[in-house]
Amino acid sequence: MIYFDNAATTKVVKEALEVANLYFTERFFNPSALYHGGLEVKNDLNAARRVILSGLGAEGKVYFTSGGTEADNLAFFGSKKKKNSTVIISAGEHAAVYQSAQVLKDRGFEVKTAPVDGAGRVIEEEFEKMLGEDVSFVSVMHVSNESGAVNDINKLAFLTKRANPKAIFHSDGVQAGGKIGVRLSKNIDLYSLSAHKIGAPKGTGALFAAKNIHLSPVVVGGGQEEGVRSSTENTAGIMAFAKAFTLTQNSLKESLASVTEIRDFLFEKLSSFDDIKLISDAACSPYILAFASGSLRGEVLQHALERRDIIVGTGSACSSNKATRRVPEALGLSGKYLEGVVRLSFSRFNSMEEAKIFIQTFTEVYKELKNYVG
Amino acid sequence: MIYFDNAATTKVVKEALEVANLYFTERFFNPSALYHGGLEVKNDLNAARRVILSGLGAEGKVYFTSGGTEADNLAFFGSKKKKNSTVIISAGEHAAVYQSAQVLKDRGFEVKTAPVDGAGRVIEEEFEKMLGEDVSFVSVMHVSNESGAVNDINKLAFLTKRANPKAIFHSDGVQAGGKIGVRLSKNIDLYSLSAHKIGAPKGTGALFAAKNIHLSPVVVGGGQEEGVRSSTENTAGIMAFAKAFTLTQNSLKESLASVTEIRDFLFEKLSSFDDIKLISDAACSPYILAFASGSLRGEVLQHALERRDIIVGTGSACSSNKATRRVPEALGLSGKYLEGVVRLSFSRFNSMEEAKIFIQTFTEVYKELKNYVG
Repeated sequence: MIYFDNAATTKVVKEALEVANLYFTERFFNPSALYHGGLEVKNDLNAARRVILSGLGAEGKVYFTSGGTEADNLAFFGSKKKKNSTVIISAGEHAAVYQSAQVLKDRGFEVKTAPVDGAGRVIEEEFEKMLGEDVSFVSVMHVSNESGAVNDINKLAFLTKRANPKAIFHSDGVQAGGKIGVRLSKNIDLYSLSAHKIGAPKGTGALFAAKNIHLSPVVVGGGQEEGVRSSTENTAGIMAFAKAFTLTQNSLKESLASVTEIRDFLFEKLSSFDDIKLISDAACSPYILAFASGSLRGEVLQHALERRDIIVGTGSACSSNKATRRVPEALGLSGKYLEGVVRLSFSRFNSMEEAKIFIQTFTEVYKELKNYVG
Repeated sequence: MIYFDNAATTKVVKEALEVANLYFTERFFNPSALYHGGLEVKNDLNAARRVILSGLGAEGKVYFTSGGTEADNLAFFGSKKKKNSTVIISAGEHAAVYQSAQVLKDRGFEVKTAPVDGAGRVIEEEFEKMLGEDVSFVSVMHVSNESGAVNDINKLAFLTKRANPKAIFHSDGVQAGGKIGVRLSKNIDLYSLSAHKIGAPKGTGALFAAKNIHLSPVVVGGGQEEGVRSSTENTAGIMAFAKAFTLTQNSLKESLASVTEIRDFLFEKLSSFDDIKLISDAACSPYILAFASGSLRGEVLQHALERRDIIVGTGSACSSNKATRRVPEALGLSGKYLEGVVRLSFSRFNSMEEAKIFIQTFTEVYKELKNYVG
């Protein structure tokens, strides 16, 4: 199988699996327990927090959550915002952020959407015009899950704070953390991460919060995670996350070089197709390559490739079964292209050989299907 | 090591660990993906829901959550309740329920607390007196995590509905599911479960909801779990939960017989100690045996036993580091006994041999420490 849907989820890597199993068995204690075994696990969780902080190049706190979605929800609902003030999100946001913003809208906030260019990047001049003292909260994703578009979040956060020093800047870093180099400036207040996109189990994520950010609880109970997120900690998931994060940090350059080679190769090959529009561009994260066919539906291509043992995505996996076209439309796609989106997403375990097999198979499949359709 | 803190958390059993590893590696696909691998995992999750429903002897829906705490929070915050109406909880509730009720109080609900007897059981006559048409929501735990006290939730739910057919009845079943036989009557609307108390990983729980119960989302995003709880599903945790739940269901009678023998033995031995007050009684779940020393602090006993490689609890692990005495006080403990609580909690993997070693060691340790204190 060639698996090119790594932005949807990844296989758990051996080293992370071993760590998870260690916390399933030997180190299975409840981290709230006051005996040695429990205290040790609590210390391990704190070491995991330091791993995340160091990977982000930031000082502050790390709250572990059940995933990227809950981290985004915690950022939106746990942070303090002036009543009825303005919230800005980008037009390219993942459903976890988009839906959180809709809830704030229902609660009386004015929600504004910053437009993106054809690759999904926030148009900085347009964004800047929207800022002002009324803006209390901004959420712009670091890397687009649909196209790999990279936003200069440090710059956007700087602009946000210049317009209103009290505004809170959040970024969904789910497709960035452990993939591209992340160095959060002091202007980034909140940053969401997910474990299962980088070789760790599903069910774990984290929200980074800068020192001065106070979060209200979103889940109440025993008071874990400094009371912000009660629940017995998912110790195995968290420790496996830290392990996978360390591994990706240590191999970041090699991974980037390897997926860039794959992306560039496929980019060039795919650009020769008449009726295929490349959504991602060279400035995007090389982990994602999205394109749209003007004649074939993404789902049809997906299933045809699957029969040849190649797995690809059709946009955000999280929304795939609701056929939402919100983000593709924001990227300016229209007509048949809207239905023709295919997303290839890579990991450091993919090879150029796979890329070559992919393009050969894709070319055949595409011809066949077009003949069939035409 | 003798591990008598199974109500805090359990080691993951081999069979559940194997299932988790299967979903970490081979079946790692995102259940929202539209290709075969994803659809298969989605089907597996639905099979897991049926396992839970069958174990509860109930018809309705099962929403998977990040744990028992989130399940309790979802029950409290996701269910519809008349504004400013009355909510009843018992005095023995876990922090996840107690704190959720405090949030409702802050939102304008009147929260009333049903008293419990010395073992932690809701006093039914007192409970009945509190009911009325103003009561919109009731939450009474099935089995107390502090004492093992079993509430007749089917009866309490019947009384609740008789007083107000529109009232919603929730029960925290975290210490009951997979341990004692659970058969939910039609009057139970919501029921919380946790995976890590029965040999599955931490980070997974479930909320059962009767057919007619509509829940509002507590985590928004991609729309998983019918939109009630967005987030890529913790597939490995959920499937391991279903596996562990099946195993406990299949061995329920044998397990009950085995832990009852241990409990009865220790109960008898401990009752011969002058200054030890048994909190649990014979009607409690045999998985938990709590007692209080009138001369030695629970923590001191815990540490002394730990040095002899015996692990015991000192009340709710989830609140152990906040030294809350809310529940012990509700049970009528006072003076030195309040600080002297020790909780033994068993699993089907504990043996009579361990119980004998425990009582011998405990007797020695108790004498030594008393000499030291005295």
